[in-house]
Amino acid sequence: MKLTTLRTSAGSRAARVDGETTAVEIGPSDVGELLADPGWRRRAEEADGLRHDISSTDLGAVVTRPGKIFCVGLNYRSHILEMGRELPRFPTLFAKYPEALIGPNDEITLDPASSAVDWEAELAVVVGSTVRRASPAEASAAIAGFAVLNDVTMRDWQYRSAEWLQGKTFEATTPFGPYLVTPDELPGGVHPELELSCAVEGETVQSANTRDLVFDPVELVSYISTILTLHPGDVIATGTPGGVGHAREPKRYLYDGSVLTTSFAGLGEQRNVARAAARVPA
Amino acid sequence: MKLTTLRTSAGSRAARVDGETTAVEIGPSDVGELLADPGWRRRAEEADGLRHDISSTDLGAVVTRPGKIFCVGLNYRSHILEMGRELPRFPTLFAKYPEALIGPNDEITLDPASSAVDWEAELAVVVGSTVRRASPAEASAAIAGFAVLNDVTMRDWQYRSAEWLQGKTFEATTPFGPYLVTPDELPGGVHPELELSCAVEGETVQSANTRDLVFDPVELVSYISTILTLHPGDVIATGTPGGVGHAREPKRYLYDGSVLTTSFAGLGEQRNVARAAARVPA
Repeated sequence: MKLTTLRTSAGSRAARVDGETTAVEIGPSDVGELLADPGWRRRAEEADGLRHDISSTDLGAVVTRPGKIFCVGLNYRSHILEMGRELPRFPTLFAKYPEALIGPNDEITLDPASSAVDWEAELAVVVGSTVRRASPAEASAAIAGFAVLNDVTMRDWQYRSAEWLQGKTFEATTPFGPYLVTPDELPGGVHPELELSCAVEGETVQSANTRDLVFDPVELVSYISTILTLHPGDVIATGTPGGVGHAREPKRYLYDGSVLTTSFAGLGEQRNVARAAARVPA
Repeated sequence: MKLTTLRTSAGSRAARVDGETTAVEIGPSDVGELLADPGWRRRAEEADGLRHDISSTDLGAVVTRPGKIFCVGLNYRSHILEMGRELPRFPTLFAKYPEALIGPNDEITLDPASSAVDWEAELAVVVGSTVRRASPAEASAAIAGFAVLNDVTMRDWQYRSAEWLQGKTFEATTPFGPYLVTPDELPGGVHPELELSCAVEGETVQSANTRDLVFDPVELVSYISTILTLHPGDVIATGTPGGVGHAREPKRYLYDGSVLTTSFAGLGEQRNVARAAARVPA
């Protein structure tokens, strides 16, 4: 099953996507609110609400306001090894707040405070039930599905201190969607094997497969649920492979008008234009 | 004005504290919900609801579910200088999730996954209005008040990777309260000058004054609001002075039954017993 969050004239709506073009309203205002209903799967399957042509409908972040967004650093095996590092024993975890999220086709806001805005194509795990100290089987069952997320990062702010948070959570920078796709529809299921691609101005800058993840979705749900309870709608962005702009020579960033395209096979594509925010009076 | 969140037999309730012992219910379920009402100040001042003797009432985290909790590292001048470091140009920011919060007299959960649980007495700033790119005057006006928070930290998990988040957000570890006190009642107002004290088993382990903060509450609100919008109920934990257990020789941590006492002059006192969580079946 494929779910999405539509922006309709009547407000935001969770919808099921049938085929390539039809979105059927389910009732809740977004996929996050849908997942909070323990009967979400059946409710979504049986929904028969208003229909929309998705190609002419604006989409929001697939979960509009996750209770928690965990991000993972250094999680693609080939990239770690090519950097000459050892594989980590533990995941590197940091946070992002919901204010950062935008829809899959929205503009990425380039804040005048940063001059080093970079891309990070990531597989996002969306939690579908409440879990704590989850075994692998429990963690698998708690995964509602997967979505595309680009962890757009202000590198200058990321490295102002040892802790990355401030470069990772600028307002209206992180496209999330278009779809949440349930594991049964994806090769590898909860251990997905998906080709990903990220392009800037049409030139591919990141290309990898999620089978190369060091800590896969099931391990991450299990690990994080040791720390605290995961709730429906919580998100884990699983890290990015090599090819980010900051690691290039010369370094490359997003500028006003840059077009960023991010896709994962089976999860759909994001297309975001970077746009300089109006300068605010000092 | 002094506000608190009571746990009553009818559920959680925001209350105004009159004098030393009387709490008067306001209506909303916690101080966070109260602050979401733009007229919160007047509403709280004029409230005349059910009265409770606060000394015999259980208290919750003063804001039960903040939308965002920012934490600041390395922010006490004397401690940085005594460590031989230079004062930072930018604040170090990291996150904590609401699942970590507990009431000011609740038990701190010692998770079996950690064997290095440490204290960090901190002044918490509670945001009272919506602000973005706040000038100092706007930041000052956006501060609803201050509260005690102990950023209890799993040191072993904090240092599993370069990013501290995983050691900072264990479930049910972070006492927050008892009161939110508005700036007008505190020496220094929005630049508070408060003596703080943290004790383990009655022995003082941290002792400092908030006038020693490198980045004070107004600067922090202004800085963070450059990154994203701050909303009512959001929290900024402003960092801890020297005296944590991990920096002692020998290192010292909290164990089952340890009593942690944290107080700031004018903001009240927390008293928390650390308690080992029941081991869960593997």
